[in-house]
Amino acid sequence: MNKNSSNIMALAPKSSNKRETVCIFGTGDFGRALGHKLIQSGYPVVFGSRSPQTSSLIPKGAEVMSHAEAAQKAAIIFIAIQRQHYNFLTSLAEILHGKVLVDVSNNSKINEYPESNAEYLSQLVPGAKVVKAFNTVSAWALQSGTLDASRQVFVCGDDTEAKQLVMDIVRTLGLTPLDQGSLLAAREIENYPLQLFPMWKFPILLSLGLTTFFFFYCLALDVIYPYVYEKKDFSFFIAITIPNKICPILALILLGLVYLPGVLAAIIQLYRGTKYRRFPDWLDKWMLCRKQLGLVALAFASVHVLYTLVIPIRSFVRWRISDRIISQVLNNRTELLNTTNAWISDSYLALGILGFFLFVLLGITSLPSVSNNVNWREFRFVQSKLGYLTLILCTAHTLVYGGKWFLKPSSYKWYLPPVYMFSLIIPCSVLVVKFVLIFPCLDKPLTRIRQGWERNPQYSE
Amino acid sequence: MNKNSSNIMALAPKSSNKRETVCIFGTGDFGRALGHKLIQSGYPVVFGSRSPQTSSLIPKGAEVMSHAEAAQKAAIIFIAIQRQHYNFLTSLAEILHGKVLVDVSNNSKINEYPESNAEYLSQLVPGAKVVKAFNTVSAWALQSGTLDASRQVFVCGDDTEAKQLVMDIVRTLGLTPLDQGSLLAAREIENYPLQLFPMWKFPILLSLGLTTFFFFYCLALDVIYPYVYEKKDFSFFIAITIPNKICPILALILLGLVYLPGVLAAIIQLYRGTKYRRFPDWLDKWMLCRKQLGLVALAFASVHVLYTLVIPIRSFVRWRISDRIISQVLNNRTELLNTTNAWISDSYLALGILGFFLFVLLGITSLPSVSNNVNWREFRFVQSKLGYLTLILCTAHTLVYGGKWFLKPSSYKWYLPPVYMFSLIIPCSVLVVKFVLIFPCLDKPLTRIRQGWERNPQYSE
Amino acid sequence: MNKNSSNIMALAPKSSNKRETVCIFGTGDFGRALGHKLIQSGYPVVFGSRSPQTSSLIPKGAEVMSHAEAAQKAAIIFIAIQRQHYNFLTSLAEILHGKVLVDVSNNSKINEYPESNAEYLSQLVPGAKVVKAFNTVSAWALQSGTLDASRQVFVCGDDTEAKQLVMDIVRTLGLTPLDQGSLLAAREIENYPLQLFPMWKFPILLSLGLTTFFFFYCLALDVIYPYVYEKKDFSFFIAITIPNKICPILALILLGLVYLPGVLAAIIQLYRGTKYRRFPDWLDKWMLCRKQLGLVALAFASVHVLYTLVIPIRSFVRWRISDRIISQVLNNRTELLNTTNAWISDSYLALGILGFFLFVLLGITSLPSVSNNVNWREFRFVQSKLGYLTLILCTAHTLVYGGKWFLKPSSYKWYLPPVYMFSLIIPCSVLVVKFVLIFPCLDKPLTRIRQGWERNPQYSE
Repeated sequence: MNKNSSNIMALAPKSSNKRETVCIFGTGDFGRALGHKLIQSGYPVVFGSRSPQTSSLIPKGAEVMSHAEAAQKAAIIFIAIQRQHYNFLTSLAEILHGKVLVDVSNNSKINEYPESNAEYLSQLVPGAKVVKAFNTVSAWALQSGTLDASRQVFVCGDDTEAKQLVMDIVRTLGLTPLDQGSLLAAREIENYPLQLFPMWKFPILLSLGLTTFFFFYCLALDVIYPYVYEKKDFSFFIAITIPNKICPILALILLGLVYLPGVLAAIIQLYRGTKYRRFPDWLDKWMLCRKQLGLVALAFASVHVLYTLVIPIRSFVRWRISDRIISQVLNNRTELLNTTNAWISDSYLALGILGFFLFVLLGITSLPSVSNNVNWREFRFVQSKLGYLTLILCTAHTLVYGGKWFLKPSSYKWYLPPVYMFSLIIPCSVLVVKFVLIFPCLDKPLTRIRQGWERNPQYSE
Repeated sequence: MNKNSSNIMALAPKSSNKRETVCIFGTGDFGRALGHKLIQSGYPVVFGSRSPQTSSLIPKGAEVMSHAEAAQKAAIIFIAIQRQHYNFLTSLAEILHGKVLVDVSNNSKINEYPESNAEYLSQLVPGAKVVKAFNTVSAWALQSGTLDASRQVFVCGDDTEAKQLVMDIVRTLGLTPLDQGSLLAAREIENYPLQLFPMWKFPILLSLGLTTFFFFYCLALDVIYPYVYEKKDFSFFIAITIPNKICPILALILLGLVYLPGVLAAIIQLYRGTKYRRFPDWLDKWMLCRKQLGLVALAFASVHVLYTLVIPIRSFVRWRISDRIISQVLNNRTELLNTTNAWISDSYLALGILGFFLFVLLGITSLPSVSNNVNWREFRFVQSKLGYLTLILCTAHTLVYGGKWFLKPSSYKWYLPPVYMFSLIIPCSVLVVKFVLIFPCLDKPLTRIRQGWERNPQYSE
Repeated sequence: MNKNSSNIMALAPKSSNKRETVCIFGTGDFGRALGHKLIQSGYPVVFGSRSPQTSSLIPKGAEVMSHAEAAQKAAIIFIAIQRQHYNFLTSLAEILHGKVLVDVSNNSKINEYPESNAEYLSQLVPGAKVVKAFNTVSAWALQSGTLDASRQVFVCGDDTEAKQLVMDIVRTLGLTPLDQGSLLAAREIENYPLQLFPMWKFPILLSLGLTTFFFFYCLALDVIYPYVYEKKDFSFFIAITIPNKICPILALILLGLVYLPGVLAAIIQLYRGTKYRRFPDWLDKWMLCRKQLGLVALAFASVHVLYTLVIPIRSFVRWRISDRIISQVLNNRTELLNTTNAWISDSYLALGILGFFLFVLLGITSLPSVSNNVNWREFRFVQSKLGYLTLILCTAHTLVYGGKWFLKPSSYKWYLPPVYMFSLIIPCSVLVVKFVLIFPCLDKPLTRIRQGWERNPQYSE
């Protein structure tokens, strides 16, 4: 869309829009961007400023005047100034009485002040109706019109009507208002734009920790051990061989951790005989980040797939294959096809492919636009039934892949188990417990508990 | 978000919300979850219950009283009890007169009762305005706030104003109301949460059937035939070789089936000389599940790609390659590069890669959030032009891959054609007919018919 | 959903919907489809037609009458006739006075007429309130209910109340209204459905041009050169080898072009000492199509990955490997593992895999539904931090891959540099400049400029 044409549009004499005038305090970046967008959407805009002279930066069609004058022209006033300068508003208390003040401010740190900016504003001008909104929208996005990032505008406030007015403006600007309740929610809303993937913190830290541990474990067994005992330099294993061991291990462990809390919750419910007591806090938190855990697991699985598929292109692998063939030829030995080996190799590859395919399917259904289009029963079917099938296939893939090593003493270098065995502990435990929970003697009471039945009914928490 | 803080929020004395009181009949799981969410959003909530004592389970801030008392406090009453217990409401008919009753109930089977629960409620309390809503939202999703599944709330009812009131509440709770018309739509809405991918049933059953057929066909020709005639055990082909034949065949057949109904529709329209007569029912249904057919085809194609890319890692393939090299060496034979073979091999791989790439592109544009951001012309361009290009590339990939086998008698084991030939029938027919339809002598009348022209104009159906 | 049942639904005597009657002028395809949908949603519908007899095509439940009669029955009139026939409306001017006229028309060419259809309508019937809407929705989508394409309905008009009425209808039909401002926006809205990926034009044309250039460059060096000097026929390189050189080159160049405008903008801002002067037009346009450039780059990268992964399956590659082994055997030479080669091969593969993985991640976060769920800080983090990491990894991948060729004279056939060197120019320049910009002596003033500071404050543009 052409910006110039839309500017003209709003100024056109033909336009008989009856939108009410909107006032903006502050001619900074955000104030101007918001003014620009409001004018585009047909609102008459006045700016309130300490130095009320029109500059070339003020969007065309807007007037600039003193704070007091501007405030009198409109019922809604956007406070696009920084919290530190709010106190001058007390002098305007009379004019602002009954007006809707929209606090658009943000802080630079989480929980910077004891109370939220919006509440502070509400204390300064008790007669006004303060609404928190627009703080999650950037000036740049407003100005350029390319709202690639979120279109969601979180709105909160104590006065329902004032909130409705602001939400109408949000909608007119082509954004999506989300009512967050009373002004007490402003603190959370003000923290929101400062957050950086809060739900992802635990899964990512966990996987970083595990990656570090497994990296040094593999380094010791695969690089240092052969160097010490066989004087072989396998340092290049750091690039592909070792990562391609760590990735599937982490994928499987994290996938196991996605389903572990569900199993634990079932055990707790069975033990307590009721579903009406809160789970321990750590379990609650764990359950809420299962989606993130699963997606990190999917990321590791995808990288594992790529690492595996490039194997035949690797210079080392090509050398090893040709070396083996040449030594066979020189020893004049022809090998017959070992069908057992063919079976093992083909079946772990097939299991892995199917498991990965289902895993990707799970990932796709967790896309917001897809999960929004399925009903609850379908969502549960995909996330629970398909999820467990994925876990079973991936665990089987790992078991078939490394089954032969369990009983081979040579794989226990330095008396340490091969690294891939670690990956099996959690998924196998989950699958075993889940299998036990399917038995009717446990499944029936569990189902009844989940439908609201209590073993010892009592209203004590 | 912290649950505790939001509870406090709603109770805070500062909050001067003017939302109207909402009543909930029933203190079961769903009633309590809904109450919790309503209180969070600033609604005063009263519960109507047979045993009106406040328990620790009732969300903080809500009052519990008898049904009659609770009903008098609010204009909107959510009936969060099961259909079997509805009949006690007849005794409250007077109090409920003129109130908005929101039926949130679900059944456990599709079409369990002759009339929908909402219609039954409306018959029991004829003076009330019954609105069906919220039945697609789960208690768990309301309580935890993690509405991963659908945010859509289907609403229907005979009274427009009552419906508007309910839709406002839906919006305030951060959900998306979808007006489905009069109360007669309640039956469909009540069936909705019981459905499990109804549009996917036909594509999945079809592909299961075809998979079974092709599996046994391949088993006979690839495993049993060599076992019988050459005493070779190729049973491990079941893991990768045979699936990697079935997947591309199904992908191509299903992709052909996506475009076949469009071609059939064009023929029917040309034959009838009008577009104003309904297509046969099976064709209508077929056209509506084209997207699902295409996505299942894409799934098969993706698995085919993975199966193909692991080929060089397979133990059997490595053995075969080294066996061939060793036998060449032992016979002291060096082969020259066969450029024809190189051309065939490279071009079918290239065609397959490009076809698959376009196929994935089609899949991505069918994601709701992507297709929602393109206009009609762009959507048609992608789904029709790019779609046919995909079909052409994939068919060419298959033709180049297996062209040499058509004339080789050894590929007709037991007088049966190689399995991949089956995959070419539908796509080739579609492409030939489509090619014929492009000729001006057919394309021109077709375009005119689609613009509304009729060969024998008559208003008879 | 069953169409028949919903028809019945609307006609059911029980339905006491109080929706206001809506009038549609024109019984063509779109008019009928719209009428059908409106009746389904509970609106009484009357059609205005030149020949007012009910035909079997008119949706059940609608009445057909003369234009004048129909117009009198409703406050909102949809003008579902073509612009050429608008002039008869002047004769109805009196009846249409004060009514809301909804212009749903489209043109067949961009900017076909001097003024938009909606403005023309408004000039013809000055007393009516004209609203532009529904032109982006297809009759087929309305009729079939399968709104796979956009659900967005762009609405504009000079009368705010009239616009609200139309937007309410849009919402009731299950579509999403987007207020685009005054009637002057109608021109843009009418052009919208005629557009075919306007933002993608530049990236696609650019990559087509570059592809052509690099194709002939590679053809000369890889096919013609060996044919001329060594009489070798490598024509089959056209299928995979050459595309697999072009794809990574284009991916890297386009990825560089995504980050180049940001770097240029920083230099311009530093030089000017202010951010309040507009960038040159070409830079503005370039910045707005960065997302599309990036996605085209991702497409090339994906095809490159597929082309690379099929390498070991290629008939030519298999021949080359076995040829090499056989010649080694015949010369009785065994090669020792070259760890340097193993390091180079493994590390460029690992860099490529990680770069591609991050690239796909960037692609996923650019999906509308995902980017809609992250806040501004998160979006910036992903697009900027992860984006630069991707660029670094991909450039390193290319450098490690081809490093050895820089100093080898044999790679400069016909005195031309190997083609892959071209791909390094832009990304390396971007990375070098970006690295320089990170130095505090440049970073500090830049940050201050971006926060609004000006070196020579003056309000001149």
